[in-house]
Amino acid sequence: MGTFIFLHLVFFWQIIYCNLGNPQCLGQQPITFFREVLALCEHPELMDRDETREFFSPDAIARAKEILDTVPSRAIGAYSHCRGNKGLRDAVAAGIGARDGFPNNSDDIFLTDGATPAVHMMMQFLIRSEKDGILCPVPQCPLYSASICFHGGCFVPYYLDESRGWRLALFEVKKQLENARYKEITVRAMVVINPGNPTGQVLSELNQREIVEFCKKEGLVLLADEVYQDNIIVEDKKFNSFRKIVRSMGYGNDELTLVSFHSVSKGYYGECGKRGGYMEANGFQPEVKEQIYKMASVNLCANVPGQILTSLVMNPPQVGDASYELFTKEKDEIISSLAKCAKELESALNSFEGVTCNKVEGGMYLFPRLFLPNMAIEAAKADQEAPDAFYAHRLLDATGIVVVPGSGFAQVPGTWHVRCTILPVEEKIQKIVSRWKAFHKEFMNEFH
Amino acid sequence: MGTFIFLHLVFFWQIIYCNLGNPQCLGQQPITFFREVLALCEHPELMDRDETREFFSPDAIARAKEILDTVPSRAIGAYSHCRGNKGLRDAVAAGIGARDGFPNNSDDIFLTDGATPAVHMMMQFLIRSEKDGILCPVPQCPLYSASICFHGGCFVPYYLDESRGWRLALFEVKKQLENARYKEITVRAMVVINPGNPTGQVLSELNQREIVEFCKKEGLVLLADEVYQDNIIVEDKKFNSFRKIVRSMGYGNDELTLVSFHSVSKGYYGECGKRGGYMEANGFQPEVKEQIYKMASVNLCANVPGQILTSLVMNPPQVGDASYELFTKEKDEIISSLAKCAKELESALNSFEGVTCNKVEGGMYLFPRLFLPNMAIEAAKADQEAPDAFYAHRLLDATGIVVVPGSGFAQVPGTWHVRCTILPVEEKIQKIVSRWKAFHKEFMNEFH
Repeated sequence: MGTFIFLHLVFFWQIIYCNLGNPQCLGQQPITFFREVLALCEHPELMDRDETREFFSPDAIARAKEILDTVPSRAIGAYSHCRGNKGLRDAVAAGIGARDGFPNNSDDIFLTDGATPAVHMMMQFLIRSEKDGILCPVPQCPLYSASICFHGGCFVPYYLDESRGWRLALFEVKKQLENARYKEITVRAMVVINPGNPTGQVLSELNQREIVEFCKKEGLVLLADEVYQDNIIVEDKKFNSFRKIVRSMGYGNDELTLVSFHSVSKGYYGECGKRGGYMEANGFQPEVKEQIYKMASVNLCANVPGQILTSLVMNPPQVGDASYELFTKEKDEIISSLAKCAKELESALNSFEGVTCNKVEGGMYLFPRLFLPNMAIEAAKADQEAPDAFYAHRLLDATGIVVVPGSGFAQVPGTWHVRCTILPVEEKIQKIVSRWKAFHKEFMNEFH
Repeated sequence: MGTFIFLHLVFFWQIIYCNLGNPQCLGQQPITFFREVLALCEHPELMDRDETREFFSPDAIARAKEILDTVPSRAIGAYSHCRGNKGLRDAVAAGIGARDGFPNNSDDIFLTDGATPAVHMMMQFLIRSEKDGILCPVPQCPLYSASICFHGGCFVPYYLDESRGWRLALFEVKKQLENARYKEITVRAMVVINPGNPTGQVLSELNQREIVEFCKKEGLVLLADEVYQDNIIVEDKKFNSFRKIVRSMGYGNDELTLVSFHSVSKGYYGECGKRGGYMEANGFQPEVKEQIYKMASVNLCANVPGQILTSLVMNPPQVGDASYELFTKEKDEIISSLAKCAKELESALNSFEGVTCNKVEGGMYLFPRLFLPNMAIEAAKADQEAPDAFYAHRLLDATGIVVVPGSGFAQVPGTWHVRCTILPVEEKIQKIVSRWKAFHKEFMNEFH
């Protein structure tokens, strides 16, 4: 592998990583306001000096002060409460309330080192034996299949309808639930990823209401992965949290078990390395919440700078704040760059022979389907590879573009896909498109 | 509980938290150099400005530049390699090499979110069923008992000898190993905490050599908790890492399986909220290392600011660096304050009726033994509490001083202890001593 990458460096001078949702690795700049506040919290002396005050926006200084005032002893180097610092949880709760238009309770919130440990925690909590099942979309983010496997449970797939823009059809979910029950699997929860990863669709409100009713009726915990909530890249779609849907349907806090996951790694901020996020657990009985709390306490607490960043992401600068203009500019540029990249890649891929690609509405990825020639499938078999992995390796080999084979996300058997981020900076898109196009043509010619 | 604490606030204006090793929560200030580098990495713009350059030490600026140069795309907001950023791992490896006088391999190092997740990872890795056992000192840090329980293994205690300064006697370990084997437990590893938590002893080099030989002979993985390595508070003791001992005995990298844990939470730095640390796994076969690597990858990566801080802790300013003087002053003040607090508390406790307290050599805690009157033990029983918990509750109730009952750490059956940190700032020590003394006298009178 080392030599292989080295050869690419020699031939192309650059591998183009389109495999991961890791924006800053691809050159995306952090949001200035967030980093100003973090730097001030790390070294509070800075805000007491007249000279340095000129280099920070006044609202960043005010926010850093506000944050330090909520941290006991103003010490971000101290362990926080296992659920996360109370003041920061309050701020996150306020941000959620403002987003949804429904107030909430900061006691339901756990600040975490990103969505990943939170999902693991819930899987560990929900899965008692291999007879406990979790409904997951297919394709899905491998976090879910890996975590269910890790905790010894049963992965119960429901297939998204690719032919209808990766629509989540409830009759399909019902069918799979019945199948699982027939096999004596106790289905405990349903995972919904909205916006979709790797599929990029945004659920309609109507669809979300159906899902809520379904989970309520069937007694399932609804696990809502909403880490791409700030990545809506089309005009005609809007993110609605499941929490908001549940509340707007009139359900109270204890009528439905809903766990929402969010992260500072995605969105326009893309601060993956900071490992911040939250989990909101609604509708559990006090004794169950106590158990979740115990589990959270096993790792003492989430990293405090990550907790601070989570509070900032949920409460960014507002109209009238000194940073608002710069913040909006940075945010809009990132989102519009994502939208442009998505569009260009999408239309390029749809022009390839034997490739179809649904429109991305949100998230960070395209998931084009490859109709591979039989000879390519045979060649993959001979190499003991899945056909999409074979294609992805060939693509890397020929162009330096890294994508992830669809088999990593699960897909309808016999269909083949790759996942490609829409993150690369705009200047690189043309290069990617032309290289990929030339490769694809050659590949299809070779195996036709 | 809420009312209870409120009442204390009314009566005492202050609860004194002597229960946790959470220094900054008790007012300990962070090390300036570390925070300068972190702030600069968060907001690199600062170091490009002539004006701000005056407010940071030149070596902090140089270090921040050096660190950003090792991070791909200079992006600390990007996911790092699952083992940790390669440049930072190299820095940690260099720091370990300088500490021990033996070079090492950064591929054996995993940067982690503190020692806790690293210990969990190793326990998950080592424990296959309830017939797999882990030898642990008693008393021990509850992390070990909790993690072994969590992963379904068997806790195999070996008792430290309180009458000889919490000495680790190898014949006791051998006896317990044989006992466990007789019960068909497969003992897979031996945990050694050095300096001890909660016991505060520092192992002699001779003792460490014996332990190494023992683990080698018995085929045990040696799990070395060395998070208090920078907390030696007596003149006549010195910290030797197990890695150094193993190397100085002439053993090569693959002759002994040793996992060392370190953390940024303790030492003179006490940056608990940052969740940084490392695990060094020596002597495992490549395929085993591959499995550990896979497990580490489940959570993507440790938080990057924590990784940076770990590299700083392992490579603090050196003689000749601009920050050296301030750094040394800050460090020495903290360590000497710990030593003073320890001494005062120690001699006070030893003057109490029915209390003995071993000398603390390292770590952050005292673990005095309480010889409780029978009537107190009966009263505890009536309250359905362990006698040491009963004592600790009474102490809190009467004085606002929070300590942890020894039963939380395990102890020789029928003996009773409490754990008390030596962290409170010096000015509070006299207050603690006089309140505790008065309480203790009254407690003993009540139950005699």
